[in-house]
Amino acid sequence: MISGHGVRDRAGNRARIRVNVRTTIDPGRNVLAVGVIGCGYGAENLHLPAMRSLPSVRVVAIADSDPERLRLVGDRFAIDRRYHDYEALLRDAEIDAVAVCVPPGAHAAITLAVLDAHKHVLVEKPLCLDLDGADRLVERARRASVTAMVGFNLRYHRHVRAARQAIAQGRLGPVELVRTVWSSQVRQQAGLPEWRRRRDLGGGVLNEMAVHHLDLWRFLLGSEVDEIFASSRTETSDDQTATLTGRLRNGALALSGFSQRAAEAHEIEIYGRQGRLLASPYRFDGFELGPAATFPGDLTSRARGLLRTVRALPGMISSVRQGGSFLQSYRDEWQHFTGCVLRGIPPDSTFDDGRRALELVLAAIDSARSGHPVDVSRLRRPDEPAESSA
Amino acid sequence: MISGHGVRDRAGNRARIRVNVRTTIDPGRNVLAVGVIGCGYGAENLHLPAMRSLPSVRVVAIADSDPERLRLVGDRFAIDRRYHDYEALLRDAEIDAVAVCVPPGAHAAITLAVLDAHKHVLVEKPLCLDLDGADRLVERARRASVTAMVGFNLRYHRHVRAARQAIAQGRLGPVELVRTVWSSQVRQQAGLPEWRRRRDLGGGVLNEMAVHHLDLWRFLLGSEVDEIFASSRTETSDDQTATLTGRLRNGALALSGFSQRAAEAHEIEIYGRQGRLLASPYRFDGFELGPAATFPGDLTSRARGLLRTVRALPGMISSVRQGGSFLQSYRDEWQHFTGCVLRGIPPDSTFDDGRRALELVLAAIDSARSGHPVDVSRLRRPDEPAESSA
Repeated sequence: MISGHGVRDRAGNRARIRVNVRTTIDPGRNVLAVGVIGCGYGAENLHLPAMRSLPSVRVVAIADSDPERLRLVGDRFAIDRRYHDYEALLRDAEIDAVAVCVPPGAHAAITLAVLDAHKHVLVEKPLCLDLDGADRLVERARRASVTAMVGFNLRYHRHVRAARQAIAQGRLGPVELVRTVWSSQVRQQAGLPEWRRRRDLGGGVLNEMAVHHLDLWRFLLGSEVDEIFASSRTETSDDQTATLTGRLRNGALALSGFSQRAAEAHEIEIYGRQGRLLASPYRFDGFELGPAATFPGDLTSRARGLLRTVRALPGMISSVRQGGSFLQSYRDEWQHFTGCVLRGIPPDSTFDDGRRALELVLAAIDSARSGHPVDVSRLRRPDEPAESSA
Repeated sequence: MISGHGVRDRAGNRARIRVNVRTTIDPGRNVLAVGVIGCGYGAENLHLPAMRSLPSVRVVAIADSDPERLRLVGDRFAIDRRYHDYEALLRDAEIDAVAVCVPPGAHAAITLAVLDAHKHVLVEKPLCLDLDGADRLVERARRASVTAMVGFNLRYHRHVRAARQAIAQGRLGPVELVRTVWSSQVRQQAGLPEWRRRRDLGGGVLNEMAVHHLDLWRFLLGSEVDEIFASSRTETSDDQTATLTGRLRNGALALSGFSQRAAEAHEIEIYGRQGRLLASPYRFDGFELGPAATFPGDLTSRARGLLRTVRALPGMISSVRQGGSFLQSYRDEWQHFTGCVLRGIPPDSTFDDGRRALELVLAAIDSARSGHPVDVSRLRRPDEPAESSA
């Protein structure tokens, strides 16, 4: 039995309403039958490998307008049911839930169609590319009795969970500074589609990478962002490198750097008055929490780090075999999604969160274009609460 | 024999002109007789401990208007000659060189007096608090035949030297991103003077900490900064926490975070297309250079790091006994200063560099105040070359 999930009323309050939608093909087994729309890089390298390893998920069909990708991905993951047309996939009665992995420009139309087909949906970030589309999606998701989740996989990364918990418990004291970096050349690979090089189509670091970290600013601190300033560099592709600074409602300042042309890195650091933490999503043992007066790299921290590494070693080896800590966050994301569908509760990354993150990305793009900081509040929905419920 | 040093002509070109000024009291021994004006935190905890360990430097006199500080510091470092009045110290014929360690608001007047007294001078950062004062100092230093140096101690830190060399050798490829953080609660200690809490008197992270890293943006990349954006947080003291982003002439983007209320940290990272480096000024073994495709924290990097730590261990233990890597940068700074005086060559951190860094700090303060990015070029001297000679 797959049941509906909690929705929000117009004031944005979460209401946990269970609505029985229909019965799955596996009434006793609690296995979600998933269809994947879009067989690009993310589906092939992140979502499908993650889902394959989960007993609660079975991918029963894929769709892509490119016959070559459809064949390649279908063969690699041994998925027989292949649709050239996503609408045919949506008519497939066996499918409970859909992963929307198409280019961002097609997110809005396809996700609306999924909701209209009464299927649960996990849509990759960004939710879509414009606020009107986001508003339609948020409205439709509120009225639908299905689980509607945005793929902010970093929210489900265990180091990010640990960081959020530590901050919520007050272990850092009041937060002064949020500092993140994400640099990866994976999107510079040959053969990637044109949209990844174009800001207007959802490509570049602001659309693709900053959206994750802007979401984490909110998620980790439980506070909204009031102002954004962005600088961007464009040469071979739009927004190949960018810097962002922001001011949060709770007084903390944030700064993040992104690049698709520079050396690999992925780090999240939070500096509070009583302590400091590091969450390093690519490292198995990449969570460190230290009191304010210690230095990162002092002898005590080193000894603790070494001990942590040794303790983590068996898990680390097993994790590397499964694709490492970053891929694990996609497994945890799908586990969370499945749990929300089966238990009828709202996910941790709702379409409202997707809209908030889009506001921040659009503010960043506006700032990079105009050269001036952008007051984010003017992009908010009139009915959005000013205080965070992230 | 203490000789004069190179000066710059009006176009900013360095000319190595040796001018014999006068003979020191130690003609054969090459020992510099130094007087220290200002006996506050920096003199007591950084400069005097550094100088004490150098055979080429002898501190012969100190001056401070506060009799208690004068007694305390004089006793601690066994310096007998103590002046309440800095002008009396400047009349002391035995003194070759002066360290100006007074609050920033007094830098300009006292440093001009040192130059008028024909003594070599090392003035703590910032050079002074306003561009008019900086212009007078730059002019006077150009005409003087003494060594005039600004105390950008991080320029003399061995990890920073290694970083600059690696970048100059092209080992990172074109640089995309410069990312730094400096957070320290040392300036929140009880008993520190009022000026440290006030932006207009040279206190707060923008004046005190950002000035160092803004100088490093230039020094490490050999490129000038075109634009600065700053956000600042003020509660118990001015600019307790701030974020900076900048755009460099060579296309690189920079972002730096500073706090005087958050947990300890000091890191400098440079991301290029072919590689990445980390310079961690507080860590003995805090220099790491990696190719673009490796992840910080992967098994190879860890193994290399462990090897580096083991190799560095004997030096590390000896360094800790001497106050650690950060204090070492003050020793290296004084060694450099002494060498420049004795060999009559210009220092690596000239008053011109001090003026450039001041331009950037004033741009940051202007930005934090106005909420808008600041074009740095409008703060430049008309005769300053647009291209960096940092």
